[in-house]
Amino acid sequence: MAPWSQDSHDAGRALGRRTWVFSAGFAPSQSTGFEPEFTSRNTLCLLNTGQKATCVKLKVYYEEAEPVGPYEILVAAQRVKHQRINDLIEPEAVYLDQPYGLVVESDEPIVAQLYYLDSRNGQLTVSHLNPSALP
Amino acid sequence: MAPWSQDSHDAGRALGRRTWVFSAGFAPSQSTGFEPEFTSRNTLCLLNTGQKATCVKLKVYYEEAEPVGPYEILVAAQRVKHQRINDLIEPEAVYLDQPYGLVVESDEPIVAQLYYLDSRNGQLTVSHLNPSALP
Amino acid sequence: MAPWSQDSHDAGRALGRRTWVFSAGFAPSQSTGFEPEFTSRNTLCLLNTGQKATCVKLKVYYEEAEPVGPYEILVAAQRVKHQRINDLIEPEAVYLDQPYGLVVESDEPIVAQLYYLDSRNGQLTVSHLNPSALP
Amino acid sequence: MAPWSQDSHDAGRALGRRTWVFSAGFAPSQSTGFEPEFTSRNTLCLLNTGQKATCVKLKVYYEEAEPVGPYEILVAAQRVKHQRINDLIEPEAVYLDQPYGLVVESDEPIVAQLYYLDSRNGQLTVSHLNPSALP
Repeated sequence: MAPWSQDSHDAGRALGRRTWVFSAGFAPSQSTGFEPEFTSRNTLCLLNTGQKATCVKLKVYYEEAEPVGPYEILVAAQRVKHQRINDLIEPEAVYLDQPYGLVVESDEPIVAQLYYLDSRNGQLTVSHLNPSALP
Repeated sequence: MAPWSQDSHDAGRALGRRTWVFSAGFAPSQSTGFEPEFTSRNTLCLLNTGQKATCVKLKVYYEEAEPVGPYEILVAAQRVKHQRINDLIEPEAVYLDQPYGLVVESDEPIVAQLYYLDSRNGQLTVSHLNPSALP
Repeated sequence: MAPWSQDSHDAGRALGRRTWVFSAGFAPSQSTGFEPEFTSRNTLCLLNTGQKATCVKLKVYYEEAEPVGPYEILVAAQRVKHQRINDLIEPEAVYLDQPYGLVVESDEPIVAQLYYLDSRNGQLTVSHLNPSALP
Repeated sequence: MAPWSQDSHDAGRALGRRTWVFSAGFAPSQSTGFEPEFTSRNTLCLLNTGQKATCVKLKVYYEEAEPVGPYEILVAAQRVKHQRINDLIEPEAVYLDQPYGLVVESDEPIVAQLYYLDSRNGQLTVSHLNPSALP
């Protein structure tokens, strides 16, 4: 592979922020079509452009229960990590078919976005969502 | 449930802003598929990460009528609330099949995002939308 | 209709910005399903929360032709206006099936978002897009 | 064509930023329907509103491999350029069916957005995504 030239002006700088928030979480439990490509999902897409690995902590908020966390995800230096919310099981599985909110906190600046795939009812729809703009 | 550790550095801090705006509201009246999962909807997704409940007030703007409001939604502390626009009936039902804009104002900082599900015509499509970036 | 109370703290203040930019414009010419509900479209969604009508001017950029404009759209005070790009014909129709970019400029602060409906090939998909974050 | 009047207050000013980041890249290799309209794709939508051509450099991040770049894209003055990620082959083709992140850097301010079309499994879904909000 051809590595990015070391004199690029972004070398060593981690892009992004340390706190991100989503309010529109909803992960359908139903799916149609082949697995795993077409399994309905919410995928948290994390990018660490920095030179150090970072520990990302998630806190999940519900409508009628106390928030749960931290969920911990390690993102290596100079790597992207696409984490399915459905696969988070420690400290407990994230509820499916329930509205949820998400606070993402990281030791180092990162970029976070959400990928939503819904294959219920013999259909396929995809959406992307940025976290909320924070002041 | 495992509560988020009390020494987390976001404890007690409410994330977000007190004013949010959307211009792209449009709630189709038609749906196909089972109810309520596949009922076409615009869902306003509110997250209150703070320690106090907050009263959220909505003002709805139309193309050819005076704005209507306030619609009031209570969001408890440390909770998410996914409110279907279609269910707002006081002071009056929000018009379906009509373009609308939305101003969201809250006593405390919150995060607001829109979830759009459209099941017209035997189809299923979902989209997410952040409010506009305000200066 | 129940008007928004005149002592609301946003009264008289126009929310938003005077300049917005989109780079991802693409309006398919093909459609399936009943018209006009399912006609493929790019809809520019403008909200004027202020007390004065505003003139919004659009400039359209292409891949292989000079930019075209201004397209002018009047948005009344306290109104939303959902303008189909496909209906802009003066100074000339916006090209369909071609990538385009859009600069939106307004006399008064407004909010702008894009609604995309694509019904090509017997399908239905909707997406929403905010303008780019400007410094 | 009717050119934008030269006394417009944006004349000569390039709108946007020089650095943009996406974390939610994923380009499906499978497609259904006629080509090229319905070929699944990730399209990077670049707009250069300035008076000078600009060289845009991309760096692609993966989950389990070193980042690759720079990919170079020339965007002429006053032009939009919609670049399919699938067509980037120098220094090497971008992996399909793999999560990726993207850093976009430009000599001059530009606007960048992502257009996602997915036609797998006899379906059609489109989504748009802004780059992450950077501080």
